[in-house]
Amino acid sequence: AHIAVLPGDGIGPEVTAAAVAVLRGVAGQAFAFTEHAIGGCAIDATGDPLPAATVEACRAADAVLLGAVGGPKWSDPNAPVRPEQGLLALRATLGVYANLRPLRVHPRLAALSPLKAEHLHGVDLVFVRELTGGAYFGRKTREGDVAVDECRYSVAEVERVVRRACELARARRGRLTSVDKANVLETSRLWRATTERIARDYPDVTLEHQLVDSMAMLLLTRPSAYDVIVTENLFGDILTDEAAALAGSLGVSPSASLGDGRRGLYEPIHGSAPDIAGRGVANPIGAILSAALLLRHSLGLDAEAAAVEAAVDAVLDEAELTADLGGHATTQQVTDAVLDRLA
Amino acid sequence: AHIAVLPGDGIGPEVTAAAVAVLRGVAGQAFAFTEHAIGGCAIDATGDPLPAATVEACRAADAVLLGAVGGPKWSDPNAPVRPEQGLLALRATLGVYANLRPLRVHPRLAALSPLKAEHLHGVDLVFVRELTGGAYFGRKTREGDVAVDECRYSVAEVERVVRRACELARARRGRLTSVDKANVLETSRLWRATTERIARDYPDVTLEHQLVDSMAMLLLTRPSAYDVIVTENLFGDILTDEAAALAGSLGVSPSASLGDGRRGLYEPIHGSAPDIAGRGVANPIGAILSAALLLRHSLGLDAEAAAVEAAVDAVLDEAELTADLGGHATTQQVTDAVLDRLA
Ligand SMILES: CC(C)[C@H](C(=O)O)[C@@H](O)C(=O)O
Ligand SMILES: CC(C)[C@H](C(=O)O)[C@@H](O)C(=O)O
Repeated sequence: AHIAVLPGDGIGPEVTAAAVAVLRGVAGQAFAFTEHAIGGCAIDATGDPLPAATVEACRAADAVLLGAVGGPKWSDPNAPVRPEQGLLALRATLGVYANLRPLRVHPRLAALSPLKAEHLHGVDLVFVRELTGGAYFGRKTREGDVAVDECRYSVAEVERVVRRACELARARRGRLTSVDKANVLETSRLWRATTERIARDYPDVTLEHQLVDSMAMLLLTRPSAYDVIVTENLFGDILTDEAAALAGSLGVSPSASLGDGRRGLYEPIHGSAPDIAGRGVANPIGAILSAALLLRHSLGLDAEAAAVEAAVDAVLDEAELTADLGGHATTQQVTDAVLDRLA
Repeated sequence: AHIAVLPGDGIGPEVTAAAVAVLRGVAGQAFAFTEHAIGGCAIDATGDPLPAATVEACRAADAVLLGAVGGPKWSDPNAPVRPEQGLLALRATLGVYANLRPLRVHPRLAALSPLKAEHLHGVDLVFVRELTGGAYFGRKTREGDVAVDECRYSVAEVERVVRRACELARARRGRLTSVDKANVLETSRLWRATTERIARDYPDVTLEHQLVDSMAMLLLTRPSAYDVIVTENLFGDILTDEAAALAGSLGVSPSASLGDGRRGLYEPIHGSAPDIAGRGVANPIGAILSAALLLRHSLGLDAEAAAVEAAVDAVLDEAELTADLGGHATTQQVTDAVLDRLA
């Protein structure tokens, strides 16, 4: 299998290197890796945050592993080209409309969470965030003193991501929570009606609706009540970051972005962390667990994915961790600890 | 002074009655109260969630005290008229563009918060949420299979709410955090540029920007770092509910919605809580503290406002509280406890 690696900016190169090392350590498998530019470093090299060569390589690959994009050097929101544009264009180009963000709380991380332990007990949920629609991709205009962002959803866009969420709920505990703002937004009313219709095809899945403001609250007060949570792009952006913070797991949370085919885009949910970039101390676990999702969803290597996840669990149990988790380990040391347990 | 009371639905009538009782108990003041319909009960009575008579009464009043709107009876998001429309139309009609939501954590409530006590220590912030613009009031369309919500902001709309936030920051600890999604949205780029320009008029205020996803996280990991947080309508809706939940204070949090004149709209941030409506057990503190904000912002009665707040603080210190706060008190008992301490 061919894996396109897009290290990106900041700690991106460090964490993707760790994930590649772990993939190389997966028993009985040989993958071909190629590296391509995206984000700020791509702007510096080519003027384009998503060079055509990168797109071509990703299209030709079986899966794409991405680090992070952005940094202070390119942070002017009014600059004509910005690193995030590369990431957004890549998501759209690859058609990866369903962004899966699993959230579990390892006991050792519970101690680092801002939440009381009793609130974290039993948390095991997956967000399915719509990733190629909504305000992210709607028309943006500026006329004189007025700016407008259009949030747009078609029935077909909602259907496919909700179907994916229903499939996932069916394979898990059979509970689906759909999040919208149907008391205010037209797109949310379309979202809600479509979700109800699709869910009828899944009689074994129980559907409930929550408003996004209530959900921001419920994630804190009873996070263990949720199984699969499906929502539109911007709400998903906000709620998944809230969820990662409440689980104390920003540095260890992976994501998989999937479309209709097998090819997917895998990235840790953390950003480029410019403050610690280049120092070899970034937490590689988010990227390594993203590689595990890559093995499962794009390559069908379920046992190998589970082996990587078990190795990471063992490291979280007993190894020295990186500074974000209160330890003193380097990126390399954590990566080696995972590889040791994988062998 | 004339106060228009809009009890609304669910527990709205119970909590506004409590707030009115407390206002009647304020020493040396006599207010005239009139009651008017809004929300679901107004739909039932007149077909309109905001009858013209209610608008007229609010326009003629010095301040408006509102309970809550909505409930299962009117919860079909596809119904042609919905209770929330009454509230949104009222906010727009009164021109109350700045929604202030203070957040402090009384020590007794810290025990009820999902957050660890050390994370709550020193939390004392105010949200200033833009309330009459954005996706709430932009054009909504449905054409065939596609729904669109327009999020729209003009420079003038951003200026006036940011100015209000700067004034507030100046009167507090001088720190302003502006929340947007400037790496993706055009309205956010306008928001950010305008905020920077306005903040230059306030050299004593330190401005920082946060992206909304990061802010959802930072509210959990270091809530005590914030003083005044200003943001657009929908982001404010989500973040203020998250903040109220983290402080364990949904039932005790007040809000003030202010425009250019003195007249304001005051409402607890909790909803209509249909599950406990009519049983006399709703927590009246959110409404009572909203009445305190009314005294301060619309009537200029600072000492009286402080007296009500001190009475509530004393009740939180030592009295039996309602069920949402783990107690067994009725709405009436908590209200009487506040009145006792006010006398
Ligand atoms: C970098 C940014 C554009 C991106 C997003 O908002 O989608 C990030 O926050 C994410 O969640 O992957
Ligand atoms: C009832 C609803 C329309 C309202 C809003 O979204 O503004 C409420 O959630 C609030 O925060 O006051």
